[in-house]
Amino acid sequence: MKTRLYNARILTMIDGQGVFTGEIHIDGERITYVGPSVPSPSENFDKEIDCQGNLLLPGFKNAHTHSGMSVLRSLADDKPLDLWLNEDIFPVEAKFTGEDIYWMSQLSVLEYLTSGITSCFDMYMEQEDVARAMDDMGFRCVQTGGVNDFSKDVRIIDYLYNKYNQKGSLQSYLLGFHAEYTTCMDNLKILADIVKKNRAPLYLHACETEHEVQDCVKRYGKTPLAFLDTLGLFDYGGGIFHGVWMSDEDMEVMKRRSLSVITNPGSNCKLASGIAPISEYLKQGITVAIGTDGPASNNCLDFFREMFLVTALAKIREKDASAIDATKVLRMATVNGAHVMHLDDCDVLATGKQADIIMIDLLQPNMQPLNNIEKNIVYSGSKQNIRMTMVAGRILYHDGKYASHINPETIYKKVEDIKKRIL
Amino acid sequence: MKTRLYNARILTMIDGQGVFTGEIHIDGERITYVGPSVPSPSENFDKEIDCQGNLLLPGFKNAHTHSGMSVLRSLADDKPLDLWLNEDIFPVEAKFTGEDIYWMSQLSVLEYLTSGITSCFDMYMEQEDVARAMDDMGFRCVQTGGVNDFSKDVRIIDYLYNKYNQKGSLQSYLLGFHAEYTTCMDNLKILADIVKKNRAPLYLHACETEHEVQDCVKRYGKTPLAFLDTLGLFDYGGGIFHGVWMSDEDMEVMKRRSLSVITNPGSNCKLASGIAPISEYLKQGITVAIGTDGPASNNCLDFFREMFLVTALAKIREKDASAIDATKVLRMATVNGAHVMHLDDCDVLATGKQADIIMIDLLQPNMQPLNNIEKNIVYSGSKQNIRMTMVAGRILYHDGKYASHINPETIYKKVEDIKKRIL
Repeated sequence: MKTRLYNARILTMIDGQGVFTGEIHIDGERITYVGPSVPSPSENFDKEIDCQGNLLLPGFKNAHTHSGMSVLRSLADDKPLDLWLNEDIFPVEAKFTGEDIYWMSQLSVLEYLTSGITSCFDMYMEQEDVARAMDDMGFRCVQTGGVNDFSKDVRIIDYLYNKYNQKGSLQSYLLGFHAEYTTCMDNLKILADIVKKNRAPLYLHACETEHEVQDCVKRYGKTPLAFLDTLGLFDYGGGIFHGVWMSDEDMEVMKRRSLSVITNPGSNCKLASGIAPISEYLKQGITVAIGTDGPASNNCLDFFREMFLVTALAKIREKDASAIDATKVLRMATVNGAHVMHLDDCDVLATGKQADIIMIDLLQPNMQPLNNIEKNIVYSGSKQNIRMTMVAGRILYHDGKYASHINPETIYKKVEDIKKRIL
Repeated sequence: MKTRLYNARILTMIDGQGVFTGEIHIDGERITYVGPSVPSPSENFDKEIDCQGNLLLPGFKNAHTHSGMSVLRSLADDKPLDLWLNEDIFPVEAKFTGEDIYWMSQLSVLEYLTSGITSCFDMYMEQEDVARAMDDMGFRCVQTGGVNDFSKDVRIIDYLYNKYNQKGSLQSYLLGFHAEYTTCMDNLKILADIVKKNRAPLYLHACETEHEVQDCVKRYGKTPLAFLDTLGLFDYGGGIFHGVWMSDEDMEVMKRRSLSVITNPGSNCKLASGIAPISEYLKQGITVAIGTDGPASNNCLDFFREMFLVTALAKIREKDASAIDATKVLRMATVNGAHVMHLDDCDVLATGKQADIIMIDLLQPNMQPLNNIEKNIVYSGSKQNIRMTMVAGRILYHDGKYASHINPETIYKKVEDIKKRIL
């Protein structure tokens, strides 16, 4: 399948290129040309799309989510994290089957596509069913382990890490576990062994609430990252989800181990967890990416909301209107997300890279006038601006319609059925 | 023109009615029926719309904005309020003509319609041109004075107050001025006389930044509302825009004078002004409505973003995930907005009320499953969910298209021309 996207504005996200007018050619899953307009291309294309001057850029990378929780949206809100997990989430989750998670993950992918998200970094249960759901949608997904003391056996992440990560697949896997506060010392030691055996980076929820950090200090005399580092869990790097409450020691571990942070501002507000110190991370040279967190804690999977919140909350936290400008946020949402997820071929638009591309409708009033397109996206953009979402060269969403292999009505019906059975 | 909206879910915003299935009939600009489905209505309708189970509710009221600033979107960002106003905004604004403001206001209305906003409370210059712009679009607008020491004559608000406010018009007017910090004592006394003569409420920017409040204390020995109240400016009530930095004395004036507050969370974040004490306002029984502020300071005019921010920031400020739940936010966005703007016929859906109605697409993934529709709107909604926006019985926006009398391409072109001339 050869596709031509012409008459476009293009933001490659390669430093210094800015926005230019031109076109992109795609052969199979990869980009074969990005550059100025080609008035009469010699190649034959299966599909040619006139972009009408709209903007093409790399798709957003949702670098932390729990796609399979979508039935829980708006089920229990307005509660702090610990009560919400223990009273509302964990008891319902215990009833989920792999088939439930297959359909609920697909519901989340439908929403990702409306928001220009072309891949996600997913942490949940029944991960083979998640991979099947994502593959059936044609969606790129990096999974990480969400195991803890309530899982059958934390060793499953070793099996999954070695099963996925095949060349040419849309599915990949990185080692991970849920969090320090849900994982006993015995299991942490098993996880450390798996890290060492695979010489692989590790991902986890950490430093999300003040409470969590205080409890870890009570248990082990250290804040979470400082403690976990003593077990060798970060010997091969990795990253943390949330990272709101950072001690100096934990920030030091982040730097020393080159850990990344994935910030989840919508969820951190909704659960009253706090505002992450994004300016401080950047000052320390730590890579920041962005995630929506799951549909139960956000409740939506909208990258425009998250991008605005990253800069808006930084401005509030620092009492400084110049904190974290739009270009930095756009980099976190695309390039940094790809790097954190080890999707090095999905970071920018260039020949040889994966064709994970979105089209932003600039002919909507919120994008007018075109004073500064990058600022317009971060400060004014909304899902309504997503004209097209392409993953690995395949258009999955275009002008409000899904590709023919995706059937939203069936997915809505399946998730309603799960809701009726479970609640 | 008689319209029937059937096969709908309906949220009237009347206390205790919740969401029910039914239909709405409209004759001219008013609602003639809201209730259960009528299988074979005896009336003839000019237009019948199958809502396909989607949700009808009162349109959002954007209770603070400066519609005519749309050319300034993404022009100057990431600066604190005082520098931003003095270095970037005021010098450019000095070049605007009435015709410029006519077109820029129309650009903002295009965006309001995509976001389900059916009326706005506008403060800007050249207000007869603003009224003409709004009327030509068929959009409901309440204007308030934005005069200050840089205006030709603050007395113009007396003339405009008595010119507009005609029965049957979409345009109305309430007394107002820009702010204490831009208005000298002589002008404040003239404004107080206009308030007394008209026995009318007064609106203004107040307590937006800490700096502003401190400066007022230096000048007059009192915080802004306590000071202004001594001049009799609030003898007939009114309200304030922003209200972020509230002294006990100012909160006391709010209660004693039954002033309302219009909160602008997007703008208050972007300009690093702070987080308004919404929970405290509610505790004190003060009416809270919501505004986007202008397209230069937000930068978008998206009520879904503002609604989420109201609850998200309250949760952060109070360190309490239960602060300001979704149902309260939805009330601020609709009923309270209408009351603050003195649009008592636009608050709820009921027979005899103005037909300012929007349709929310529930068949989008961010609204599924339908656990709680009100929470879904506030926590998950986006512009992409707006299927229809109707003002005074007239459909102005439907399925991504504007009514035939509205031409977005012309408006975009005119605003680009203004940009080229002015910048």
